[in-house]
Amino acid sequence: MPDMSVLILGGDGYLGWPTAMYFSRRGRAVTVVDNYFRRNASIELDSESLIPTANLLQRAKRWEETTGKRINVFIGDIVQYEFLLSVVHESRPDTIIHYAEQPSAPYSMLNREKAAFTIRNNLISTLNIIYAVKEAAPGSHIVKLGTMGEYGTPDIDIEEGWLEIEYKGRKGKFLFPREASSLYHTTKIQDTDLLWFYVRTWGLRVTDLMQGPVYGISTDEADIHDDLKPNFHYDEIFGTVLNRFIVQAIAGYPLTVYGKGGQKRGYINLKDTLQCVYLSSINPPDCGELRIFNQVTEVFSVNDLAGKVQHVGKELGYDVHIHNIENPRKEKEDHYYNPKYTGLAELGLAPHYLTDEVLTGMFNVIKPYQHRINRDAIFRGVKW
Amino acid sequence: MPDMSVLILGGDGYLGWPTAMYFSRRGRAVTVVDNYFRRNASIELDSESLIPTANLLQRAKRWEETTGKRINVFIGDIVQYEFLLSVVHESRPDTIIHYAEQPSAPYSMLNREKAAFTIRNNLISTLNIIYAVKEAAPGSHIVKLGTMGEYGTPDIDIEEGWLEIEYKGRKGKFLFPREASSLYHTTKIQDTDLLWFYVRTWGLRVTDLMQGPVYGISTDEADIHDDLKPNFHYDEIFGTVLNRFIVQAIAGYPLTVYGKGGQKRGYINLKDTLQCVYLSSINPPDCGELRIFNQVTEVFSVNDLAGKVQHVGKELGYDVHIHNIENPRKEKEDHYYNPKYTGLAELGLAPHYLTDEVLTGMFNVIKPYQHRINRDAIFRGVKW
Repeated sequence: MPDMSVLILGGDGYLGWPTAMYFSRRGRAVTVVDNYFRRNASIELDSESLIPTANLLQRAKRWEETTGKRINVFIGDIVQYEFLLSVVHESRPDTIIHYAEQPSAPYSMLNREKAAFTIRNNLISTLNIIYAVKEAAPGSHIVKLGTMGEYGTPDIDIEEGWLEIEYKGRKGKFLFPREASSLYHTTKIQDTDLLWFYVRTWGLRVTDLMQGPVYGISTDEADIHDDLKPNFHYDEIFGTVLNRFIVQAIAGYPLTVYGKGGQKRGYINLKDTLQCVYLSSINPPDCGELRIFNQVTEVFSVNDLAGKVQHVGKELGYDVHIHNIENPRKEKEDHYYNPKYTGLAELGLAPHYLTDEVLTGMFNVIKPYQHRINRDAIFRGVKW
Repeated sequence: MPDMSVLILGGDGYLGWPTAMYFSRRGRAVTVVDNYFRRNASIELDSESLIPTANLLQRAKRWEETTGKRINVFIGDIVQYEFLLSVVHESRPDTIIHYAEQPSAPYSMLNREKAAFTIRNNLISTLNIIYAVKEAAPGSHIVKLGTMGEYGTPDIDIEEGWLEIEYKGRKGKFLFPREASSLYHTTKIQDTDLLWFYVRTWGLRVTDLMQGPVYGISTDEADIHDDLKPNFHYDEIFGTVLNRFIVQAIAGYPLTVYGKGGQKRGYINLKDTLQCVYLSSINPPDCGELRIFNQVTEVFSVNDLAGKVQHVGKELGYDVHIHNIENPRKEKEDHYYNPKYTGLAELGLAPHYLTDEVLTGMFNVIKPYQHRINRDAIFRGVKW
């Protein structure tokens, strides 16, 4: 499908930029859009990427120099509908990948302004995409990043998006109950509400990828040149837990386990995120379908992760300590957790599991940037 | 409890103003807030209230002249947090009644701008109330108007807000599944998501009243003086179905039944809305509790309502026709519907049912305003 056009919203991000290269390398016409929210917010909050990243135009230029393939770049805010509409008109996408959300739970809990920003940004961007598809790209496939955090930690098995029940002798099929543990995660539930309404009403085709925390820094395309690496955050606001722990191990900063550390989540390697998004895009759902996949490959507790990082760190000669600190969040620290995640495997996902080799690889990529670690950014205790 | 202070957000509305008088008459210190959204929108859309209503300051003045009781008025937009915060500081409420939402399904479906307005207005107002309570009125009770429309029309019995299930041998209790049939109703689901998150996280006390369509125009307080009547909309955008049908019957305009007319909903008399809100306020839930009631007293199909209005209209000498028109909405026209609504009855609700006498009373109140009926506003076919 060499003519297929993909529009990646949030294309400057940790997932967005590697996704752009992944699709470009596979012959897609790729357009990326970003408003540099994360770049600006991470400057404001003194929590910049460990790996310095060139701006999106520079990255696209380097990509073209290196591979001969062009990635179109638009800088702007898709909360501005006319801007988004003009991009959709110009790029004529078959697939729209929606990463353009404020993605941090602690950011959304900092104060009222950040909470209101998160609601407005995440919901109005999703609404605008829905309207732009209806107006300028009918039939195109919206791939939206949800999060496993929407489900929370229920006492029953977590199905892939839907729950079929029998109740008082009658049957019903509903969205799987959602109960998140941050305002950010709650906006993702609200996004689902929005998309599900317009799928039913206007016959949109949508894939919702309920992703767990992502780790990793290496992808086949990012490894081509240092300038093509994704951003890499290790701070409390924008860093995901495993990425943070590896930086902490290298910095000699005790691994900060919140509370008892029994919090279980499903995790996924950055490389597998790319596979999942790509597999979804080449196998679109029907019009009028909201298809939901749980985008994880393994389940770990925080203690599991800390133990693995400590183990590999020690092998590599680091003196790694684990420190259980008072949990600044409201969450269960010991709970049932049994999510299903077979849908993407059925589409062909070949997982990269969290092996000692993968962890060693991450230590090795990060080590040269050790001098850039800002210890003050690692933990500041944003309270829920 | 003569010292109790109640803050009514959206106090100029169809429910807001009668609620203000109801609480004031019972000795509460009442503060009302409104930004006149509905007044302005109904001018813009040529769908003004059938009954002319004085502005809120004038209404409060008339109330004080008539009863000797004072209602404090603030005109402003609670989406502006500093404004809301100053009102909360000044009024020191024990109870905050949140009617300040864009309340029309067709309005929310008119176009993208109206949809975005509905999302921003409804969610940011709710977020601001949550933060204002935390900052300036901890422990106060938020009474929020939800809607039965959040549940949609599931094939299983509709419980009061929550669903307890057994699934694969394990048990879970969740928010009852929600699946609404307009963007407006979807924002009410999103409101629930928001409140439920902060109830769990910050220990708020919240009552969510899942109200069905309200009808009626008479309340004990509104009947004291013509200037104290609530607004009364009969158009497709802001009028609820039974109110519309009575105006249509008087105007000699066929009753517009959408599709087959088998759509069943729970309905409630305006007088009973006031009882329900009051009963909720004097019986607050505990901190950390989201208490949900289904606020209806009877279930009817649209055909039932049209039949009742035709019957009473004919008795009164009107030539009332029923016209089944192509349904401009996406909704089931023939479906299972079995909602529970026992919680408010247990608090003491004494329902006013939809009798021929009640319908006759509505015809009689509306008749003197017959010359003000704008036939063009009745049906314009806002499509879903």
